[in-house]
Amino acid sequence: MSELINNSRNRVNELKKLILELHNGKNVQETSDKLKEAMGSVPYGEVVQAEEELIKDGLERDEILKFCDLHSEALKGSLDTTHAKQVPEGHPVDVFKCENKELEKLIHQIKHLFAEASTRLESESADDLIFKTRGLFNSLMDIEKHYLRKENLVFPYMEKYNITGPPMVMWGKHDETRSFLKSSFSLFDDAVNVNVQSYLDFVDMMFNPTIKAIEEMIYKEENILFPMCMDTFTEIDWYEILKQSEDFGYCLCYPETKWKPAFAEGESASVDSSERIRFETGSFTREELESVINTLPVDITFVDKDDKVRFFSNGKSRIFARPKAVLGRQVQFCHPPSSVHIVNQIVDDFKSGKQDSAKFWINMRGKFIHIAYYAVRNSANEYIGTVEVSQELDEYRNLTGERRILQYDN
Amino acid sequence: MSELINNSRNRVNELKKLILELHNGKNVQETSDKLKEAMGSVPYGEVVQAEEELIKDGLERDEILKFCDLHSEALKGSLDTTHAKQVPEGHPVDVFKCENKELEKLIHQIKHLFAEASTRLESESADDLIFKTRGLFNSLMDIEKHYLRKENLVFPYMEKYNITGPPMVMWGKHDETRSFLKSSFSLFDDAVNVNVQSYLDFVDMMFNPTIKAIEEMIYKEENILFPMCMDTFTEIDWYEILKQSEDFGYCLCYPETKWKPAFAEGESASVDSSERIRFETGSFTREELESVINTLPVDITFVDKDDKVRFFSNGKSRIFARPKAVLGRQVQFCHPPSSVHIVNQIVDDFKSGKQDSAKFWINMRGKFIHIAYYAVRNSANEYIGTVEVSQELDEYRNLTGERRILQYDN
Repeated sequence: MSELINNSRNRVNELKKLILELHNGKNVQETSDKLKEAMGSVPYGEVVQAEEELIKDGLERDEILKFCDLHSEALKGSLDTTHAKQVPEGHPVDVFKCENKELEKLIHQIKHLFAEASTRLESESADDLIFKTRGLFNSLMDIEKHYLRKENLVFPYMEKYNITGPPMVMWGKHDETRSFLKSSFSLFDDAVNVNVQSYLDFVDMMFNPTIKAIEEMIYKEENILFPMCMDTFTEIDWYEILKQSEDFGYCLCYPETKWKPAFAEGESASVDSSERIRFETGSFTREELESVINTLPVDITFVDKDDKVRFFSNGKSRIFARPKAVLGRQVQFCHPPSSVHIVNQIVDDFKSGKQDSAKFWINMRGKFIHIAYYAVRNSANEYIGTVEVSQELDEYRNLTGERRILQYDN
Repeated sequence: MSELINNSRNRVNELKKLILELHNGKNVQETSDKLKEAMGSVPYGEVVQAEEELIKDGLERDEILKFCDLHSEALKGSLDTTHAKQVPEGHPVDVFKCENKELEKLIHQIKHLFAEASTRLESESADDLIFKTRGLFNSLMDIEKHYLRKENLVFPYMEKYNITGPPMVMWGKHDETRSFLKSSFSLFDDAVNVNVQSYLDFVDMMFNPTIKAIEEMIYKEENILFPMCMDTFTEIDWYEILKQSEDFGYCLCYPETKWKPAFAEGESASVDSSERIRFETGSFTREELESVINTLPVDITFVDKDDKVRFFSNGKSRIFARPKAVLGRQVQFCHPPSSVHIVNQIVDDFKSGKQDSAKFWINMRGKFIHIAYYAVRNSANEYIGTVEVSQELDEYRNLTGERRILQYDN
């Protein structure tokens, strides 16, 4: 046993030495080779321990951050996760992993687009490429929900168990990715009439580093963060995380299967369904209210005061389908790049109080569709969100005369 | 002090004797005179005590019930409520009293109608009288909410303080009034082509006894029940009663002022407003949800599976006004007598699953109004209520072409 401990102690010391060498400018490949040669596989816990100790020893957080990807790269293939716990379906870690899979699929599409671009004439217009890239990056913005759940739900539990280094470092990397994404969108806005050459420069300078940062984080999560948390957190912790996850929403997917720990088996999902939801002019049970909303002859989508999609009604004949993954997403990233400026203008005019509604109507597959946006204000007349109401109007437009007596349509 | 107690003891014994005399057929007026002469004013608590003791002594509950009104009548004018506690505005007792005032106003109208009828030719048709009486009795049915709050909220606290007689007796009287009301409605249904003579017979046989029963109960509440409860219940009890009152609804009025006991002063009304209401497809804060519902371009009224009105939306431009007193009312008593059979048929067809919607449209003051009823079913497809959706359609009916670009209407 003490041999095992010493062995581990030795490995951590060796790791710290190698990390410091990296920081002092040593070649990544060389360090990586040395590592593999010296130690075989490195248990992920020891990487964390090494980082933790280096921070305690006085290495700057920013320094660690800067070389964080280098560590990962040097360790790639050397991390030992064979003893990691199995993750049940619908468990928060399972959900994070599903999201990572979706992110990887999306990144694959984006890389495919970059590759396609590199085969085109450099002087050609890149308008179509910019448009497509922006659409894919819109989806990529869903990663915000993944990061928010980590930062707000997972990291606090890590801190509870005195694991403070990795959350700090990871949070820094999240912010880095956020700023990459933000800069990418600035480029989209500015990229008017650019050619393929400029587009490829954007890819090198900005789009690729963004994707790279996301990929690095996926690797760190899957090989270090998740196994470590699985080993450390209790089922009570995970259940708490799961229950709070819903409010942040999910990235590019929605976990229909909800994991339930053994201790919560008895709990009924509808435990508070008999409790009434009270309003100024009456009350409902939760079931009544949800069913009423889904029975209304209009489709509803609600975006809160922070522009996040919070709810959509789920009636039998919804005109525009909504995936659950949209919940928690910024409304600006739910629209095709060509209409985002309209979304922004409406929301701005609602927020400033200039306007209270914006209405559109279109013919779609022979149907007359009405789409209206209404500013939602509270009793103090403060803006608290926007509701989209869409409906088919043909039935109403074709009515004649009156119907005052009961007569069913079928 | 002991003299006071003995005095009280003597009065209770005297009361018991007088009540028994009444039960044995003594003349009411005679007993009443004897009472006044012998004892001056009788504190209401002693009447209760006398009734309680008689029940314990073996007098049948039904016997007490039968003579309950006789006791009241014999004691009328002799009850001493001068020492009754002041009732703050919005306190449950204040609300009950407001309801009684509204009931008395309504009864006044009904009596006025009876008086008018007695001046008409006996052979004349009484169709108009039946119609008007039914309309007024529809409103009278709101008393159900008053009785339900007593039975479900007040009586349990009385029992907690070991006051078991009066609740039992009163509940019996409620049921008596209920059966009077039910019989009255049977008469309304059957009374086709009746003349004034028959109408006046109905008044004597059924309508007047119904009103009389309600008046007797008002007297008992105001002079015995409420003062006794005010003396017995704690502020915590009353606050609990107040908070639960909302779910039963109010009779012919709505208490906008909510009483708050001193101990609850700190409590914010919006204490759980940050808590999210979660649905299958998203979530809201309570404020968001209420504001969204009131922002929708349709008016909503919801009736639950027991035909009780539970909610109505409160948008800025409601087409058909709804008073809050309607909450908790049976939907059948919210409609003019001429349309109640339509209401019943729709609800029956929804409950049986035969139909899912019923639609009407009318021209009203130059506006095209659409009124639709939809069966509300839960995820197991069980009927859980009906939602009424009404809206003005002119705007939709006058649209032409398409509007695909942002253009505000003002």
